[in-house]
Amino acid sequence: MRNIKLTVEYEGTAYSGWQSQKRGEPTVQSALEEAVERLTARRARVTGAGRTDAGVHALGQVACFRTASALDLATIRRGLNALLPADIRVREAEEAAAGFHPQWSARGKRYFYVISNAECLSPFVERFAWRVPQRLGLAGMKRAAAFFTGRHDFAAFRASGSSARTSEREITLLSVSESRGLCFAGVRLRGRFIRVAVEGDGFLRYMARNIVGTLVEVGRGKIKPGAVPGIIASRDRRAAGPTAPAKGLFLEEVFY
Amino acid sequence: MRNIKLTVEYEGTAYSGWQSQKRGEPTVQSALEEAVERLTARRARVTGAGRTDAGVHALGQVACFRTASALDLATIRRGLNALLPADIRVREAEEAAAGFHPQWSARGKRYFYVISNAECLSPFVERFAWRVPQRLGLAGMKRAAAFFTGRHDFAAFRASGSSARTSEREITLLSVSESRGLCFAGVRLRGRFIRVAVEGDGFLRYMARNIVGTLVEVGRGKIKPGAVPGIIASRDRRAAGPTAPAKGLFLEEVFY
Repeated sequence: MRNIKLTVEYEGTAYSGWQSQKRGEPTVQSALEEAVERLTARRARVTGAGRTDAGVHALGQVACFRTASALDLATIRRGLNALLPADIRVREAEEAAAGFHPQWSARGKRYFYVISNAECLSPFVERFAWRVPQRLGLAGMKRAAAFFTGRHDFAAFRASGSSARTSEREITLLSVSESRGLCFAGVRLRGRFIRVAVEGDGFLRYMARNIVGTLVEVGRGKIKPGAVPGIIASRDRRAAGPTAPAKGLFLEEVFY
Repeated sequence: MRNIKLTVEYEGTAYSGWQSQKRGEPTVQSALEEAVERLTARRARVTGAGRTDAGVHALGQVACFRTASALDLATIRRGLNALLPADIRVREAEEAAAGFHPQWSARGKRYFYVISNAECLSPFVERFAWRVPQRLGLAGMKRAAAFFTGRHDFAAFRASGSSARTSEREITLLSVSESRGLCFAGVRLRGRFIRVAVEGDGFLRYMARNIVGTLVEVGRGKIKPGAVPGIIASRDRRAAGPTAPAKGLFLEEVFY
């Protein structure tokens, strides 16, 4: 059996996430599994590197499926794209070693999060950004971000009811940057955008969004940057900020 | 009565255009009129510079309404944005002279059109670009574009059944340019994008989209660049290319 590794880009708006608890809800995984079944005439499980939540987007999700099909890689990529809806695209198809597993083999992941932060918010990023009209203080957000890097117990930032065995994770990068306007195919849309990039060896459920939610509270002046170490140490979800909306989050890359 | 001039940005996907023939369909104009009525407690007609078609977007539509309200301009702008749906934003509110009319006072308009042109099309521009997987020849499109500038009878490029008295218009600029990738809030999305910018003293219904549709036929090799003068001279809609989809078109600016 071959182990086919796909790099997948999707706009998550229409999906109940990568995988759903409830049967019958549209998921990215089931859309890929249907396309694989139609292409290879055989049902196969498509396993992803990360179970992105409903509405979260991906530029570089990685997924694998096993197949006995003899189709070459270019045909697999083109065939899947012909069968998939337009909001899911297979950017690359490769042969992977038999033991390769998109989730267990991953060394880390990078996400980024887009915040639209202007009094008059651009209507063109409605599906791709958290729109925060109140001006956020960038300096405080940057100071707060520095406290997150390193190995910590992130229990205060995981979804309540999360089932991961341990809540210790390492964040290797957390950056907050600002851009004036957004360039769309050569045209500059107006407004201030804040981008949070976060890289780590693994993420608990909602962890990236809860970190962004906390940074936004800092930007609003509701949480002091210096309070972050205490929030982490508390291991108490209620001490941290709210969960940022899914639509601003992008899974950018998975590292192996 | 004051004459209030608004500069309006909208994502047109959800609307049956600026104005609709059928009652009850959602239009940008009716959304603005409802917001003005709620803000000023008085119904007023909101007149636009151009009647964009269903699905067409705007970065700089101009619209006016007359009011006896004493609200200051900042309050009008903020108040309308608070009342409008998120896909319509008022970027500016100004006082205009009593005789100013957004359509009749306009000297010209600039539109641009986005074509996503890659084998693996980005899922993130589904609402903002015409997705053409077959590689388009840029050199031919540029040569063809040059024939459009100047004053011509554009009857071959107007919607059938169009009611404008004359079909003579002047195109002052028509440019075709390519960009590799699209930068989205600091992150580069992959793929080739072709952007058509067109500026003129006025546009017949579907004229911009019919010019783009013709340029794409040239890019595909179906129409030779040198055939364009003959197509214009024919005044025959059937000689030109198909109408490009609305979703790639943006009204960028209105000149006064």
